[in-house]
Order: sequence, then structure tokens, then C-alpha cells
Amino acid sequence: MKVVFIGAGNVATHLATELYRKSFDIIQVYSRTLESASALAERVNAIPVSDIASVINDADLYIFSVKDSVLDSMASQLPKNDGIWIHTAGSVPLDIFSKYTGSYGVIYPFQTFSKDRIVDWPDIPVFIEASDACTLNTLQAIASQLSDKVSELSSEDRKYIHLTGVFACNFTNHMYTLSELFLKKINLPFDVALPLIDETASKVHSLTPGEAQTGPAIRYDKNIIDKHMEMIEDKKIKEIYRLISENIHRMN
Amino acid sequence: MKVVFIGAGNVATHLATELYRKSFDIIQVYSRTLESASALAERVNAIPVSDIASVINDADLYIFSVKDSVLDSMASQLPKNDGIWIHTAGSVPLDIFSKYTGSYGVIYPFQTFSKDRIVDWPDIPVFIEASDACTLNTLQAIASQLSDKVSELSSEDRKYIHLTGVFACNFTNHMYTLSELFLKKINLPFDVALPLIDETASKVHSLTPGEAQTGPAIRYDKNIIDKHMEMIEDKKIKEIYRLISENIHRMN
Repeated sequence: MKVVFIGAGNVATHLATELYRKSFDIIQVYSRTLESASALAERVNAIPVSDIASVINDADLYIFSVKDSVLDSMASQLPKNDGIWIHTAGSVPLDIFSKYTGSYGVIYPFQTFSKDRIVDWPDIPVFIEASDACTLNTLQAIASQLSDKVSELSSEDRKYIHLTGVFACNFTNHMYTLSELFLKKINLPFDVALPLIDETASKVHSLTPGEAQTGPAIRYDKNIIDKHMEMIEDKKIKEIYRLISENIHRMN
Repeated sequence: MKVVFIGAGNVATHLATELYRKSFDIIQVYSRTLESASALAERVNAIPVSDIASVINDADLYIFSVKDSVLDSMASQLPKNDGIWIHTAGSVPLDIFSKYTGSYGVIYPFQTFSKDRIVDWPDIPVFIEASDACTLNTLQAIASQLSDKVSELSSEDRKYIHLTGVFACNFTNHMYTLSELFLKKINLPFDVALPLIDETASKVHSLTPGEAQTGPAIRYDKNIIDKHMEMIEDKKIKEIYRLISENIHRMN
């Protein structure tokens, strides 16, 4: 299959690299700057382009991995073609493409991607959706090359998966950021927190998050909670501490 | 060394089991109920007691692993003896024991313990503090049997380690709890989030949390943030979403 990538960010990089490894033919990589297009194109033996009008029109797949806010604009500028148009965004509905082309779909890998991190593709849940049964079959075949965990999901439900990811990944990572602040205060390296972070993630493989909850908030140990609130100087972080503690107490 | 445990909760269970494995002689386990004392005593070949007055007075170590709020009261009721008194609490100062005995200290393992989870003791940072140099040496020797990462830390600094743990573990786990809610809404099992949770924890082994941050909040993608806020019905959870998103944007 001949593939064109529109976008060269983290998701595009991981997806293109893995498809290339699975013998897909990546023809072109488009990005706003030639530098960024080249960085990915080199990895997958493709031609970098920075002018959307010069994208070829005889590829089988056009995979858009760009910021949600520019997706519609990129789609409107892509030269007409008969390929399948695919996007990889959690919160953008399938039908964003309906104005522009006939066969389209979504491939949404539920994982956080950073350049230069190797991810375990077969283990990543991949959610697909398509404009019609035939396109869905093609997407199923493509996604199955990537992952052992492919399933169909509507645009509406995919929004909830995306929201899930914000809590399970983005907000979790921010808790790590905040914990690092307090370690810095006593001149300890972030490494000190890693065994605790790993065990916290590991526990929810065998316990529900409710069962795994520990700490002063679940006991609602007012004495410690008040002491901690006093120790936090920053008002916003203090408010985060208070709100999450109250919510742990309320929900458990 | 002859050891008595005051308390039979998660920390006591893991600590007693590991010391027993390292050939310490666990003589008695005290708990408020004989049932709970017996559950741990059986694992470590000790005698269960539920009357604090019947604790022997010729042990070398008395390890208090009880709720912060009852620690002082338990210490006041323990029969006088010449052993070293140790507690395992993050937010309780060393000198809580000074009214009652002469040699005392703290052994604080920085990990989350749940019964029936095996933890990797050598990898757990263990922070110690003692009433005097001689007792500190003894604690150093004991803690080194447990972990390869033993260091001295003051009561004041230990409070910050404890606060670090609340964010890195307790609040992180609550983010998992909240992510589970949204998966339930679309009838997907919590398992779907595990690869993402694991990778999020794994990333901060090679990147700082600041470098690892992804998602709509760091880009401050107002469009997605507003959509997500609309999807969250619960007011408190909506407020948590808003506050954390703003803070990610502010700090990164």
C-alpha cells in the first residue's frame, strides 16, 4: 500500500515508522516546514514536502496526524484523490472529511507518543471508525498489522476515550511534575520517586483503582491534610491538593 | 535481634515479613484486635497480642506501624523497656518518643504497600533518623538489610517526602479512578488504560516530567479543553479538570 503522511509530529512519527517496518510504502511526508518533514521522511525512506499542493494524488492512504485545529484546513487543501483519508485524533469526529472525499476513517492509537521512545505496538488499544463497510475492512486490516487490540468505536465514544487519556496520562504526569517540586525543595533527585510511581502504576493491574487507593485523603486524616496544606505555598497547587483530597474521600 | 511489632497493617506486614525473611526474630505482634495481630503473627512465626500491657520488655526493637493519630497514645501505653523504639510514619517527628524512652528512631520506606503485593525491597528508598549516633548506626545496619538505598533524613525533610508521595502515588491513583469513570461510561474495561498508564510511568525514567508532558492542556488547546469540560457532568471533577489543565499550562 502506498501511503502519504500529512504531519510529522509524535503520532505521525511512531505510526509511519511502524507501518514502514511492516512493509507499507511511505511515499511522501508533508509538514509545514521541510526540516520537520525531512526528519520523518528520512526514517521511512519517503520524500519530504512542505507544499500541500505537491502531494501526489495516487496514494492508497492519506494519514493526517496534525493538530486538531488545523485538520480541517489541511483536508481542504489536499489535492483531490481516490485514496482513503484517515485521521488519528481523539476528539475530532469522523465526518470532518465528508465534505472533501468519499472514503475516510479514523485510526486512534490509545497511547502517549514521544519521539525516541520505543512503544510496544501490539499491546496498544487501537480504535477505528470508517465511512463505510468496505473502508472499515481496509482499516481493520491495516490496524491489525499494528496492534493485537483493534476495535471499532464511534466518534462520540472516542471522545470519552480521549478524556480518559487526559486523566490517565496527562494529569497523572502533572502529578509527577508536582511531586518533583517537593523533592527539589529538599534537594533530592526525582529518581527517589520512581519506585513509588512504578508500583502505583503496577498495582492497578491486579487491583481496581478504588482498591489500590491509599494515603491521608482516603482515611480523611484531617491532621495530615492540614499540615500538608500549610506546607504548600503556591495557592493553585494548594487548591489542587484540597480538591483531589476531598474527591478521594467522597468517591471511596 | 528480637523484634516486637506494634501494629499489623500494610506497612507492618511488609516490614515484618521482610525482616523475618532476613532472619530477624519477630517475637510478638500487637494489634487492637487479636484477629488482625494473628494474621501477621502467623506469617512471621510470632505471638499475637491485643493487650499492650502484655508486650514483653526485653526485645531489642519495638517497631510502631500504626496510624499517626494513635502513635503517641500507643507509645504512652507501652511498658518501659531498654529497646530501640522505631516508627515508620512520614509526617510524625522523631521526638514523639522522647517523653517515653531514651533510644529511638524512624525507618521510613518510601513506597505504597498493599497486603498481598510483593514489593522489591532493595529498590525502595528508605529514610532513617535517630535520637543519637549509636542508635543511628543500628538503624543503618537494620535498614541496609532491607534496601540498597538507605539515607538519613530529618523529620522536617521527611514531611516533604511524604507530601511528594501523596502526589506521586495517592493523587496519581485518583487520576486512574477518574479515568475509569469515563471508560465505564462507554462500557469499556479499565484494562484499556493500562498500556497508557504504564508508558506514562515509564517515560519519566528517561525524561523529566516537564519533558514528558503531552495533551491538550500543555498546548492550551481551548477547543478540546472546553469540549472536555462539557462532557464532565460532575461539578467537582469538572473543577479538577479545569484546575489541573490551567496548572499544566502555567508550569510548562
